[in-house]
Amino acid sequence: MKKPDTGDMPAESFRQYGHQLIDWIADYFAAIESHPVLPQVHPGDIAGSLPASAPEQGEAMQDILADIERLIMPGMTHWNHPDFFAYFSSSASGPGVLAELLSGAFNINSMVWKAAPAATELEQVVMGWLRQMLGLPEDFFGIIYDGGSASTLHAIAAAREQADADFRAKGLAGMPDKRLRMYISDQAHSSVEKAALVLGLGREGVRTIPVDSAFRMRPDMLQQAINADRSNDWTPFCVVATAGTTSTTSIDPIAETAALCRDENLWLHIDACYGGAAAILPEKRDLFRGWEFSDSIVVNPHKWMFIPIDLSAFYTRKPDILRRAFSLIPEYLRTQEDGEVINQMDYGIQLGRRFRSLKLWFVLRYFGQEGMRARIREHLRLARLFAQWVDEAKDFERLAPVPLSTVCFRYIPDDGLSEEELEARNASLLQRINSERQFFLSHTKVQGKYMLRMAINNLRSEEKHVRAAWQHICKHARATRDT
Amino acid sequence: MKKPDTGDMPAESFRQYGHQLIDWIADYFAAIESHPVLPQVHPGDIAGSLPASAPEQGEAMQDILADIERLIMPGMTHWNHPDFFAYFSSSASGPGVLAELLSGAFNINSMVWKAAPAATELEQVVMGWLRQMLGLPEDFFGIIYDGGSASTLHAIAAAREQADADFRAKGLAGMPDKRLRMYISDQAHSSVEKAALVLGLGREGVRTIPVDSAFRMRPDMLQQAINADRSNDWTPFCVVATAGTTSTTSIDPIAETAALCRDENLWLHIDACYGGAAAILPEKRDLFRGWEFSDSIVVNPHKWMFIPIDLSAFYTRKPDILRRAFSLIPEYLRTQEDGEVINQMDYGIQLGRRFRSLKLWFVLRYFGQEGMRARIREHLRLARLFAQWVDEAKDFERLAPVPLSTVCFRYIPDDGLSEEELEARNASLLQRINSERQFFLSHTKVQGKYMLRMAINNLRSEEKHVRAAWQHICKHARATRDT
Repeated sequence: MKKPDTGDMPAESFRQYGHQLIDWIADYFAAIESHPVLPQVHPGDIAGSLPASAPEQGEAMQDILADIERLIMPGMTHWNHPDFFAYFSSSASGPGVLAELLSGAFNINSMVWKAAPAATELEQVVMGWLRQMLGLPEDFFGIIYDGGSASTLHAIAAAREQADADFRAKGLAGMPDKRLRMYISDQAHSSVEKAALVLGLGREGVRTIPVDSAFRMRPDMLQQAINADRSNDWTPFCVVATAGTTSTTSIDPIAETAALCRDENLWLHIDACYGGAAAILPEKRDLFRGWEFSDSIVVNPHKWMFIPIDLSAFYTRKPDILRRAFSLIPEYLRTQEDGEVINQMDYGIQLGRRFRSLKLWFVLRYFGQEGMRARIREHLRLARLFAQWVDEAKDFERLAPVPLSTVCFRYIPDDGLSEEELEARNASLLQRINSERQFFLSHTKVQGKYMLRMAINNLRSEEKHVRAAWQHICKHARATRDT
Repeated sequence: MKKPDTGDMPAESFRQYGHQLIDWIADYFAAIESHPVLPQVHPGDIAGSLPASAPEQGEAMQDILADIERLIMPGMTHWNHPDFFAYFSSSASGPGVLAELLSGAFNINSMVWKAAPAATELEQVVMGWLRQMLGLPEDFFGIIYDGGSASTLHAIAAAREQADADFRAKGLAGMPDKRLRMYISDQAHSSVEKAALVLGLGREGVRTIPVDSAFRMRPDMLQQAINADRSNDWTPFCVVATAGTTSTTSIDPIAETAALCRDENLWLHIDACYGGAAAILPEKRDLFRGWEFSDSIVVNPHKWMFIPIDLSAFYTRKPDILRRAFSLIPEYLRTQEDGEVINQMDYGIQLGRRFRSLKLWFVLRYFGQEGMRARIREHLRLARLFAQWVDEAKDFERLAPVPLSTVCFRYIPDDGLSEEELEARNASLLQRINSERQFFLSHTKVQGKYMLRMAINNLRSEEKHVRAAWQHICKHARATRDT
């Protein structure tokens, strides 16, 4: 009986199929516009086309690669498509994808320095590069987490640790006289509240502050809320301000909030997952004024800096508190170098960590700082252009300022329609647009108003795509009017 | 003035450099043994060799790729190396690396079904394949998280939700009369206690149960602890049993623990991050007997199933409770399909999710179930062989049973040495071995005994490597004796 094969794919096969896959991807990128952005698929279609069990015998790589086209592509929403304008349309660049390949091949786990010196140190260096580009001072320590939800959770955990080091031993129930409360605007991302649930604060541990007419948190109302809570036996401990809210990309008044947090001794976390990328532009830096006085900041390069998902950049001026919140060192992870190195496991939940810094390194080098600025600037220009078209159209209404690259708007076919009627019209318009699968937009609802969102931060979206999208929207809007 | 380039790398450049990188990786895999497993590098060396800032102008891809060799390789600990026997030596297979490339290229975010139908459904299907291979019943719902730490955190969060749905509103401090406690053995992984810190339970919320002579949690002591806690106003809510502890790979008595948890109405989570892979072997299934009665299980395919980091497989029989613990749906993430599809964001912390299921799909298909079994079996055989050599050597002592693929042992040059002397000798032996950089082993300390660990679960480790490692260890051990 032949001894069964117990090794890896032979290196020569890896070479052969690797070349084949690279060609497939290059063709896919080149012909991305030949696909509809949304698939023609119903729930269960893809699952139904797949075998119920793993094959008993190994299959040929050739067949597996062929199944990408046959089984996966029919169910793809193409985030790479230049006509993807939904959510925040994060897009991956070529150099980022190549770095991801290399990261998979190295397969290191940078839990401790010894297990991955290059990964540990490259992460510190490129996070320093990005920090400088964002205009943040040197005392901001950087670490990469998977996404914005994780970064914000780590920030609030550090804030909790700062509030009282005894929570680590006793837990929240062990200190019921110190009931924690944090503050966010009513436009903050759902992940902030989710973090509060995870951390054991409960929904009551989060207080929502109203926004002004431009959807920015009101510092006066924040101050009132804190005062009221202090006199009602709550312990305020943290404020999360947003620089680029998900619905309208509004930017909370950071400098005022930072001053308030300093006076009240609260941890200030800035959720700049989306908006932060714009801080690399000198002409936009003013929007972020004061964030250098915050305790922590998250910016997601996988959102608007052309890095493949996932890579969230987290910065804090208080790395010691972050480490105190998360460090637990078992014997089997002690190394000789402890004390003179950064062991990344000490700064978060995750022990096993991928070599994520490679893709930030590749992308920042390939495009250069100048190239990064040019790309972000172009998206801002396209958004202003789109906003101008909306403003000029008599039967459309723009519903929020456009400080960044996303435009919120709605169709108003007639005067005097109720909010309910407008919502129904615009929801049906969105459904018509998306069901044609040529363009993909999403929606939101703010202060009772249903809005369409046009998010322009895809590397492949050019003026012609944005213009075509606008024409398409107008055509459908006016067609609904006639029906 | 020329309009600045605002697009991606041209598809033809992607093709050219992609081919070049594939060749580089194929050569790297083929010549992996020409590198020492550990680098000759001191803290700060890699960081010091890198520029202090990102380049202003974009750089040529050619130069970036050349810097892998010039700047990164000198700081690499090679997890791909067949002589990597430290920690759990997770290794990436060729098909897994190719899938990672594809995942980077697609760059989808499978937060909601509509944003990624293929990814959402492929994940359900391949998690079903793996569930069947593990011998788990159909009512286990599967979802992929990044790593074991995250999976265990999600399990305990669901357990907390099960304990009282009011925690979601009030938080832990809002219900101080219900102070939660969970139970682990003193051999459980540090991530379990870290999860308790994150979730706000505090270290006092975790009670550690002693183990038997084979390092398995003692159900009698567990029962006593629960009884004592109940009569002291604690609310027991969760037990985490380990199937393959990190130090010695001991497996807690799962069936007895499951029966106890059923009687006591506690959530039982099984941490089988490492050990679970062995459950695909019929001859090892008995070690896991009873885990089908648990509430949740984590198995890490990135640890011992040849999937590039990160991919942690989480299963629960109570997906509704998991969803209740984590679901928060803002308007901007509502879709028409809500209610008839799985939106993965509802089941965890992370909103942005990579297309991780591709690599599980590629690897299970390329090796087949038979090939996966052959590889795991070979590692078990090599570990038994190594254990036998240790047992036969008069001056070595094996310190734990070897149910899986890791051997714990120490050198005992003379009779009558104290634990302190033995620790000093073996710590110095480990340092000698690792400082030669030819083999990489790690250590642990259990019940006061310092142990060397030989972890054999690397796809590229063959009998000749294990044999050479043993000879190397013996040579160094006996050399220390003569000094």
